[in-house]
Amino acid sequence: MDIEADRTGAARLPTLADVARHAGVSTATVSRCLNDPDRVNARTRERVLEAVATLGYAPNFGARALAAKRTNTIGAVIPTIENAIFARGIQAFQEELGRQGFTLLIASSGYQEKLEAEQIRNLTARGADGILLIGYHRDPAVWDFLEARRTPALVAWAYDRGRPQPAIGFDNAAAMERLTEEVLALGHRHLGFISAHSAANDRASERIVGARRALAAAGLPEDALQVVETEYGIDTGAAAFDAVMQSRPKPTAVLCGNDVLAVGALRAAKAAGLSVPGNVSITGFDDIELAMVATPALTTVHVPHREMGRRAAQILVALVRGERPPPAIDLGTELRLRDTLGPAP
Amino acid sequence: MDIEADRTGAARLPTLADVARHAGVSTATVSRCLNDPDRVNARTRERVLEAVATLGYAPNFGARALAAKRTNTIGAVIPTIENAIFARGIQAFQEELGRQGFTLLIASSGYQEKLEAEQIRNLTARGADGILLIGYHRDPAVWDFLEARRTPALVAWAYDRGRPQPAIGFDNAAAMERLTEEVLALGHRHLGFISAHSAANDRASERIVGARRALAAAGLPEDALQVVETEYGIDTGAAAFDAVMQSRPKPTAVLCGNDVLAVGALRAAKAAGLSVPGNVSITGFDDIELAMVATPALTTVHVPHREMGRRAAQILVALVRGERPPPAIDLGTELRLRDTLGPAP
Repeated sequence: MDIEADRTGAARLPTLADVARHAGVSTATVSRCLNDPDRVNARTRERVLEAVATLGYAPNFGARALAAKRTNTIGAVIPTIENAIFARGIQAFQEELGRQGFTLLIASSGYQEKLEAEQIRNLTARGADGILLIGYHRDPAVWDFLEARRTPALVAWAYDRGRPQPAIGFDNAAAMERLTEEVLALGHRHLGFISAHSAANDRASERIVGARRALAAAGLPEDALQVVETEYGIDTGAAAFDAVMQSRPKPTAVLCGNDVLAVGALRAAKAAGLSVPGNVSITGFDDIELAMVATPALTTVHVPHREMGRRAAQILVALVRGERPPPAIDLGTELRLRDTLGPAP
Repeated sequence: MDIEADRTGAARLPTLADVARHAGVSTATVSRCLNDPDRVNARTRERVLEAVATLGYAPNFGARALAAKRTNTIGAVIPTIENAIFARGIQAFQEELGRQGFTLLIASSGYQEKLEAEQIRNLTARGADGILLIGYHRDPAVWDFLEARRTPALVAWAYDRGRPQPAIGFDNAAAMERLTEEVLALGHRHLGFISAHSAANDRASERIVGARRALAAAGLPEDALQVVETEYGIDTGAAAFDAVMQSRPKPTAVLCGNDVLAVGALRAAKAAGLSVPGNVSITGFDDIELAMVATPALTTVHVPHREMGRRAAQILVALVRGERPPPAIDLGTELRLRDTLGPAP
């Protein structure tokens, strides 16, 4: 949206009063309908929502301020606080929110879909003006709920042009595809893959998709990639490394769904007397501090966590103020070729 | 607080009108002051905030108490989410809260006292039934506010018998004193200390106190300990190591206020061509995963993060349910003598 449109847009945007007039109800009813829909009977609600759709009404700053007091509080539901995967991005997110006069409340879902839905509901009930979510995967009812509540939500850590939700992130599949191409170029033909549980985690499942795509493009069979799923953690990564190395033929490179798992794999390789990358190559994903502290330094995919967090805050604040969502933003990723990826033995 | 007080408390809660009367302004001004403070001149704002603090007013609370509706939401304000220092304890805290039917909302203060006070106020306004706080150090007005609000608060990560607040944690000074005794027993007489900024961080300042106590007990002069303060981080830890090694006589052991700083110090030592512990010993504090991943494995103080988090949840839920606070609980700590502490060269 350019500045010119911003300046004049306000005058052209439909107001709460327009919706009320169109639906033949009072503005109070429209407001109740948007903010506390359970207290409005179904037929009225439908009429109001129809008017909202027809006019293309979106609750802007003024309307929100009138209808429901803004709290200047933004919620974020992240899958885990225990590993540092989301920490840097969320820290940058909070710092930018602070600059914009907003406070952040964080909830962690422990990668549990049901708990995430509860926490989204709770943050909304506690008055969150907008919510940051990680990835797209969730029950459609949750999206409907946010839509009905007119609570702006922004997806981060993922990017998919084909999805309607506002998002800022990167293409997880493309990133892992590029890394896998690099691995294949070094002569590896039997790969292991240690992934987080992928059923309800689109970042994890997309990374597997990307690796498979690179293998297919190289004309390799599907079973050239042996996937083991586990929980994120150093200990679980180590155990999964031992498991995936039982595959026959034995993998010469093990791709890990994130740096925490990769550090666990490194530890297990060391314990098994395997030199990295002499006997086996190991790669990570994320480029968190752990990746550089690891010995040898971890080859991984750099995710622009700080930029993602900062810009996510700017977008979400704009949405809360009633601006139209920008198209999904792909920040891209970069390979960090350090010391754990070498030629196939 | 017993149940009787809870039942009758609602009637005594201060209203917006009380604040306005106390500050000698209109209710609209109070409201603007709380919701859009930039539009109120500084002197008026100060007067209103003083009245808010004195009366213990929090927006929305009256309604909540009248409805006698608990939100089953607990708030936690932690100094940082970026490093993993608090992550494991908070994860255990959340898991236990979940078992008890409570949801957790986390706010991060970035080690800023003013921001912490704001977030405590915001969590209270958002309906938090109880709040977990890290350490004791904060403006007495914040304690007064919580007291007046009747919002139970529990201190974690610290323990001081002399303080009135319910707490679960450990004696930071005693823990660092024991580690320092171990260092001195190995012949070290010139120590460096890399600390977080200690002015508003009682965990950090207590750890320095503990090191000084051990030195005094060994009959060493105060300047046998050279303290450098910096922000938590690997990079800042590395820079602080270079700085503290400029002290004359040169330190033969560098104590670090936490594991993150210690990993930075290890990196800087390696970069300077110093062998650890051959040329210089380095120690950490916390025993987070990083400590075991570091090479050589870090000698550090093990903090029982999971137990602290789990029991903190049980205590806070009991307080919310109106039980009397137990005496402050000292969980103790343990030395983890790994590979970075050796005899003085």
